[in-house]
Amino acid sequence: MSGTLYGVGVGPGDPELLTLKAVRVLQTAQVIAYLAPNGGDSIARAIAAPHIPAGRTEIAMTTPMVADSREPAANIYDHFAIEFAVHLNQGRDVAVLCQGDPFFYGSFMYFFARLAPDHGVEIVPGVSSLGAATAAAHLPIASRNDVLIVIPATLEEDDLARRLGGCDAAMIVKVGRHLGKVKRVLEISDLLSGAIYASRVGWPDQRIAPLADIAEEDGPYFSNILVRRRGGKA
Amino acid sequence: MSGTLYGVGVGPGDPELLTLKAVRVLQTAQVIAYLAPNGGDSIARAIAAPHIPAGRTEIAMTTPMVADSREPAANIYDHFAIEFAVHLNQGRDVAVLCQGDPFFYGSFMYFFARLAPDHGVEIVPGVSSLGAATAAAHLPIASRNDVLIVIPATLEEDDLARRLGGCDAAMIVKVGRHLGKVKRVLEISDLLSGAIYASRVGWPDQRIAPLADIAEEDGPYFSNILVRRRGGKA
Repeated sequence: MSGTLYGVGVGPGDPELLTLKAVRVLQTAQVIAYLAPNGGDSIARAIAAPHIPAGRTEIAMTTPMVADSREPAANIYDHFAIEFAVHLNQGRDVAVLCQGDPFFYGSFMYFFARLAPDHGVEIVPGVSSLGAATAAAHLPIASRNDVLIVIPATLEEDDLARRLGGCDAAMIVKVGRHLGKVKRVLEISDLLSGAIYASRVGWPDQRIAPLADIAEEDGPYFSNILVRRRGGKA
Repeated sequence: MSGTLYGVGVGPGDPELLTLKAVRVLQTAQVIAYLAPNGGDSIARAIAAPHIPAGRTEIAMTTPMVADSREPAANIYDHFAIEFAVHLNQGRDVAVLCQGDPFFYGSFMYFFARLAPDHGVEIVPGVSSLGAATAAAHLPIASRNDVLIVIPATLEEDDLARRLGGCDAAMIVKVGRHLGKVKRVLEISDLLSGAIYASRVGWPDQRIAPLADIAEEDGPYFSNILVRRRGGKA
């Protein structure tokens, strides 16, 4: 009897945004795993902490990040996929904690790709950074026939501008050190007024402010910018 | 002491996808409201039912829908916003149940626009149809530097094709009677292979299947199509 691999979305920060399903899986899975970048604390574990029973087998994937991409090297996924498979083959369920939603710019997909062919996998969707940021910012991002685009801030300046051109609303993700560039692009595209900067949503140091008021050129990696075109149908 | 208006995301269907915060608000709000289109049952209430205490004041917004748009007429929002304001002014919290996430193509924005200027409002984000559908379909929709676009199926055929052109991944929402059209566009755009049809996610009659295998020209209003470009970086 093989175990099940769970990708468990725990939401972006507020522990109250865990779903009932995530709580149930955390209370029953024999093994709980999470990335702990650069040997620091795991963000996902901090969110889920109130629901992790004492004495559970935990796998902290402490790993150096590849410079800039904020992703661990691929061999880290190979290594831990093998460790998970040992547990699964012995009938133990393994729950991998995922900040936000597992399949919305999450790294769980790398474990999914390695283990889904041979093991039972269940994805527990979570509140995404899109939902949490628009809620915190009081910004109804998309409605009716709006086209909404999600764009990583890592794109080149002209590519960003081109993609923002045709949409009614946008969330720019992974802003981090690209903050200054994104701000310039939005200003040129006449979208700066009304754009909202959201960082650390759901944490005590949450920051929600008009992008035009943000002076820095640099933000946390997990900061987002929300854009709604004026004169939209809202 | 004025009450608070809550927009409470209850997820797309599975009652286990309610968040702990949604459950708390349902257990404490004195008034619980929901749309009940065409006098039928409310989908959002059905999802939240296990957590609505007996004897709570409920406002079922039974209302005819405007043909095709599946939205009630604007005067319905005016009417119920006034009813909510009476409760809020008397210090009672009003929780409006929202299928999915309140600000992701939800109608809560119409109450938000009318009541936020004069009342305290809190948005409780929920698992969106995007998260639930990609989880159920086992499709990691976006990762790394992917551009993800959310497009209503109501757009014209050439507009749909143009917007699908530049993205790595897409969710087409509100498919309903546009199913045949969307399928044609995806076929022309060389995106049909790999596209996944998802309807009634989280309900007993959930359907997840390759779009190429769907023979009908018509689907339920709340059906979605998930697209990932082959040769992407996943």
